[in-house]
Amino acid sequence: MSPPSILDEVASLLERLRSRRPLVHCLTNQVVKNFTANALLAIGAAPAMVEHPEEAAEFAAMADAVLVNLGTLDEGQMGAIRRALPSAQNARKPWVLDPVAVGPLGVRTRFAREILVFQPALIRGNASEIIALAGLAGRGRGVDSGDSAEGALEAARTLARATQGAVLVTGPVDYSTDGLTVTACSNGDALMTRVTGVGCAQGAIAAACAAVSDTPLQAATAAAVLMGIAGELAAAISRRPGSFQTALLDSLDALDGAAVRARGRLA
Amino acid sequence: MSPPSILDEVASLLERLRSRRPLVHCLTNQVVKNFTANALLAIGAAPAMVEHPEEAAEFAAMADAVLVNLGTLDEGQMGAIRRALPSAQNARKPWVLDPVAVGPLGVRTRFAREILVFQPALIRGNASEIIALAGLAGRGRGVDSGDSAEGALEAARTLARATQGAVLVTGPVDYSTDGLTVTACSNGDALMTRVTGVGCAQGAIAAACAAVSDTPLQAATAAAVLMGIAGELAAAISRRPGSFQTALLDSLDALDGAAVRARGRLA
Amino acid sequence: MSPPSILDEVASLLERLRSRRPLVHCLTNQVVKNFTANALLAIGAAPAMVEHPEEAAEFAAMADAVLVNLGTLDEGQMGAIRRALPSAQNARKPWVLDPVAVGPLGVRTRFAREILVFQPALIRGNASEIIALAGLAGRGRGVDSGDSAEGALEAARTLARATQGAVLVTGPVDYSTDGLTVTACSNGDALMTRVTGVGCAQGAIAAACAAVSDTPLQAATAAAVLMGIAGELAAAISRRPGSFQTALLDSLDALDGAAVRARGRLA
Repeated sequence: MSPPSILDEVASLLERLRSRRPLVHCLTNQVVKNFTANALLAIGAAPAMVEHPEEAAEFAAMADAVLVNLGTLDEGQMGAIRRALPSAQNARKPWVLDPVAVGPLGVRTRFAREILVFQPALIRGNASEIIALAGLAGRGRGVDSGDSAEGALEAARTLARATQGAVLVTGPVDYSTDGLTVTACSNGDALMTRVTGVGCAQGAIAAACAAVSDTPLQAATAAAVLMGIAGELAAAISRRPGSFQTALLDSLDALDGAAVRARGRLA
Repeated sequence: MSPPSILDEVASLLERLRSRRPLVHCLTNQVVKNFTANALLAIGAAPAMVEHPEEAAEFAAMADAVLVNLGTLDEGQMGAIRRALPSAQNARKPWVLDPVAVGPLGVRTRFAREILVFQPALIRGNASEIIALAGLAGRGRGVDSGDSAEGALEAARTLARATQGAVLVTGPVDYSTDGLTVTACSNGDALMTRVTGVGCAQGAIAAACAAVSDTPLQAATAAAVLMGIAGELAAAISRRPGSFQTALLDSLDALDGAAVRARGRLA
Repeated sequence: MSPPSILDEVASLLERLRSRRPLVHCLTNQVVKNFTANALLAIGAAPAMVEHPEEAAEFAAMADAVLVNLGTLDEGQMGAIRRALPSAQNARKPWVLDPVAVGPLGVRTRFAREILVFQPALIRGNASEIIALAGLAGRGRGVDSGDSAEGALEAARTLARATQGAVLVTGPVDYSTDGLTVTACSNGDALMTRVTGVGCAQGAIAAACAAVSDTPLQAATAAAVLMGIAGELAAAISRRPGSFQTALLDSLDALDGAAVRARGRLA
């Protein structure tokens, strides 16, 4: 499909998101819960965070999509996720996996591989996380990527085929793939790495998109385009990280189909 | 009592709050801890969040009021709340219950009913939460209210009489009742629903008010008026959610008796 | 050393911090995780928060410094800290202790004394916390200091000698000591107490400084000077707490050697 047609799809997905207001059950990390909830509200979705294992199972079936982000995984959250995912799968609700820091840290790496069996509609990670999750030789250190997004494309295709979903590899260019085709999105601004949780919020927005998209690949591309353009709009308002963070929420709210078509940069 | 007299009471309560600076022990949800603390600081109170069961019991007796918000309830927090509430009750410190998402989720619904025995000075919730807490037929789904505030008034009166406290039912109009009289406050702005934790912060402010109020009903009405006016002032500064959130904290700080008397809309 | 020479050292430490971008493993409280991460990013360091006990041990050895803040200590976090600190010590990574509310609360007071055996490079606290940690007669109540920073100097010197590290006692004037010399920094603004987590973020910045400093004392003084000047710059932008918080992050980003030399007020 041509880039303009894909941008048309993203624009109409954004419209659907705002009219349906999908409820996203976020099992995410402690650092970004507030910003993630505000990013979902700003773009037009509805957030909810329920972590008691019994309730996480109840709620995953009521929500329209589930986000699992492993940033501050502990035993309690592992229990909640193990209850939520089969419930989401039974209710045919899509879920997104954000495998934060998978690779150098042991517990989450084993756990991320364990829950792949529940078939995430979408996996969103940086190059090192995607390579490590695919079981290939990771070169990541700590929470930053030591690999280029381009170098992770083979791992991304492998994971997408194995899960029958889509993978979004993030970096200066974001790549989305369903194992067959690859779309590259070059929207965004380096300031997005100076505010904590921008990538995590992109994962949550990807879950909101998956609740209203025709295919997982469409949701992955939409998350890349929407967050990337919002980042550019915010960087035009402020070059300092505190006010940039505020402007990013304002820009997610201000996004519309015209901005998507005019500013989206796909290849 | 006439609306102008009630507004006079709210204005003088705000003055007392700022001179006494009540310490509010918040047992609240993970999404809103930071915003809640900042809202308390902005209006002139002092926040503290202590969740180890032993320390929660120690601290509830030292604080001037306690907030219990069930948004992300887990077993650890349940343990802390079960220790904090008898301690607060023994020390004659008022506490506020915010029964987030009570109704559709089982664990918190049973838990909220269990802790009613400790007699909250004030319960703050949306219509569906108040109806469900009263044990009536709930129509709520997920975390949003499926019922109108007006439809929850009977449940609110019942709960207020049962706890010998006050109930604040929130919505486009906020209703406060002690089981006998009902006050309606129509201050506020729809943007307040586009930022996570505004309602939760109102619950914390209600706890600060309860620490310095003559009656629980006065605290409930004050929380409605103060947060509602701050929301209007913030909406006059920004119509986008990121900068609205910042403006809301600034507006809580800027509130004074003159604004309360000039802008309060009670019936 | 003369105040101008110390400010030269702080200026060059800030340069080193920005070129080396130390990774700070934060085991901190639930209220301030987001703001702490953003403060570290704003000044030029890299935050990470890993709390599973196994992973906390792995990660403490990978990071450049560790922060332990006891604000919302629970049993799970105690387990993670007990694993992280020996790992940091074995890997010769400096760690900072922020003993929030030590004194009036029992569990954290015993725990703080227990972990002193791992020899923090730096302890940062208000006067009451430092006095209580040293085992002297505390006059603190709740989370605020009931003692003056000047009155805590003897306790600070005792702790610094016992840990062979530095102690930073915060208040209107911040005092840093290694047990021998004492430096007083009078930078800062009262608005910094109207935003939650400014002190906690200072502790995290102290950890980032300790990763690139020649001595613990230098890191303690740098944390006082850098946060104090950023607070003054932010207060020049806004006198309201919501926008002050945003301006504080922007000001941490804007700090440079010239500002340190021109505005630092040491004695």
